[in-house]
Amino acid sequence: MTAEPSPLTIAQLAELAGVSTATVSKVVNGRSEVSPETRAAVEKLIRQHGYRRQRRRPAPTALVELLFHALEGDYPIEIIKGVEEVVREYQLPVGVSELQPDQASERGWLEGVLRRRLTGIGVIAVFSSLTEAQREQLARREIPLVLLDPTDDSAKGIPSVGAGNWSGGLAATRHLLELGHRRIAIITGPDYALASRARLDGYRTALDMAGIPVDPQLIGRGDFLIEGGLAQAHRLLRLPDPPTAIFATNDGQAIGVYHAARRLGLRIPDDLSVVGFDDLPSMRWAIPPLTTIRQPLTKMAAAAASMLLKLAHGEPLPQRRVELATELVVRESTAAPPPRPHALPPG
Amino acid sequence: MTAEPSPLTIAQLAELAGVSTATVSKVVNGRSEVSPETRAAVEKLIRQHGYRRQRRRPAPTALVELLFHALEGDYPIEIIKGVEEVVREYQLPVGVSELQPDQASERGWLEGVLRRRLTGIGVIAVFSSLTEAQREQLARREIPLVLLDPTDDSAKGIPSVGAGNWSGGLAATRHLLELGHRRIAIITGPDYALASRARLDGYRTALDMAGIPVDPQLIGRGDFLIEGGLAQAHRLLRLPDPPTAIFATNDGQAIGVYHAARRLGLRIPDDLSVVGFDDLPSMRWAIPPLTTIRQPLTKMAAAAASMLLKLAHGEPLPQRRVELATELVVRESTAAPPPRPHALPPG
Repeated sequence: MTAEPSPLTIAQLAELAGVSTATVSKVVNGRSEVSPETRAAVEKLIRQHGYRRQRRRPAPTALVELLFHALEGDYPIEIIKGVEEVVREYQLPVGVSELQPDQASERGWLEGVLRRRLTGIGVIAVFSSLTEAQREQLARREIPLVLLDPTDDSAKGIPSVGAGNWSGGLAATRHLLELGHRRIAIITGPDYALASRARLDGYRTALDMAGIPVDPQLIGRGDFLIEGGLAQAHRLLRLPDPPTAIFATNDGQAIGVYHAARRLGLRIPDDLSVVGFDDLPSMRWAIPPLTTIRQPLTKMAAAAASMLLKLAHGEPLPQRRVELATELVVRESTAAPPPRPHALPPG
Repeated sequence: MTAEPSPLTIAQLAELAGVSTATVSKVVNGRSEVSPETRAAVEKLIRQHGYRRQRRRPAPTALVELLFHALEGDYPIEIIKGVEEVVREYQLPVGVSELQPDQASERGWLEGVLRRRLTGIGVIAVFSSLTEAQREQLARREIPLVLLDPTDDSAKGIPSVGAGNWSGGLAATRHLLELGHRRIAIITGPDYALASRARLDGYRTALDMAGIPVDPQLIGRGDFLIEGGLAQAHRLLRLPDPPTAIFATNDGQAIGVYHAARRLGLRIPDDLSVVGFDDLPSMRWAIPPLTTIRQPLTKMAAAAASMLLKLAHGEPLPQRRVELATELVVRESTAAPPPRPHALPPG
């Protein structure tokens, strides 16, 4: 018998080898419950003839592609869970991918989406922004898109889901004011992020309504990362007239504040009160458990997925912008200010 | 003109409405940069005639489906990152799904996979197990499968990736012995998890080699969850002859131990040393930063994805079982034992 040029199916290999198709299947799928002799015989046939994997049923797609700026910490998991809850009834997985640095910065994330052989229902882009040219391109390609927690309003016109950032900033600062704090610092996120701007404005308004002038020294510019929170807190806590409370504007930065306090020998909440923003699941296990503003990430993601499904089915959206409410969650990182502020040697 | 029974394409709608296809596309995709009059006119046409979404290019699939027991904490993110690194070159997302409780327990997770209209390259199942019947079913359906961190050896014959659990248990316990601890407790995972058994055996062997008999009172049965770690630590720390160190066997349980210590007024590491297992990224930000056994989850996931791709392309696997090394990461939660053990009122 001469070798056929076209590769064989499992059934053909089984016939040639004189074994069952199940046995050939085990060999080609790398299972071990096959005798060494049989395995050797089948592998020899595959080397001679080649092996053609059976075609599967019509290909399903990842219904919804979820595009993250960064896969770090428990923020992405909260989002994936929310999308999965909605997509689950289609019995398909959620497609998850992470932007590569070049996509995130210079060329923008959209080129990545367009380079992909993308189909499925559409894309949910998390914490992203896009240019006018990109908006046009998406519309031309008819790729349904929903923005989740968009960084800016370049996305005007694209359906989006966000949270009550301004109200959250207001509530965080009011909570500290009600405890009696007057020297309240804030560590913001990056300037380009509207969510950060809104939280800062809520902070300003709460102070203003309490008749307390905003002290520019007490505004630290952060980046929504733990390390940035740590660096800013270190600076703030060594001011000659230091704050007795810090609104960290996200949970990661709050953990940075915890570490700055620890290094400086300050106790939370005795010497310093801290409020975060997000209420990631791990925050109730911070030491001490973190007082924070709850942003309902899982519900926000579910809302984005529902909007995307509506768009994909050609149904009208009841609203283009959905904003879910935030709420204050009081745990153990906030208390009344100390009788006298801590004193540290200037930094 | 009478209404056609078959729905119209964007081009047909545009012609009827006397607008550009880009405008119709904006309307059907929910964008806002369209005048209210034009929007109303297009929407009226869609109500009359219906709208047929253009067929997309051939459907891509989520190349690799990643099946999680639970989407909680930063363990899943480490795994997704690893698979994504390998799958990235295909410019497709990773498919992520979470087992539903009914799948995880009674009917097993496999039925969920088979119920899906699954294709793509195959499945990576994380922290799962399967019955013999399930194994047969998978082989028959020719669904390539790799197990990542499998819970038991029911998966014999299925390619799998794990970590050096026994060596990790040994290294964790030896580290505590070297610091001078003699009363070393352990909080295990669930009994059915081989990884947990292996870590416990490493602990036993380290004690045995140091000539220290294993005290059954110092073995706490946990469940790999924070709450279980907390409950077990609370019991252990109130023993008449309490441990000076606890090997928590995963990072979540270590955080539970931190909280038990905090509630009992014990300082880490001054009064109590704690060692975790996994080295999740958040652990270097625990207070104090956690000494733990690093399990290279991202590398393990990348190895599983590479194996799955080989299987899918009909290439032989160099090995069916890949085990990556663990390593001790010393941070600030371990120190020499206190001169005299803490004394607490019995629980």
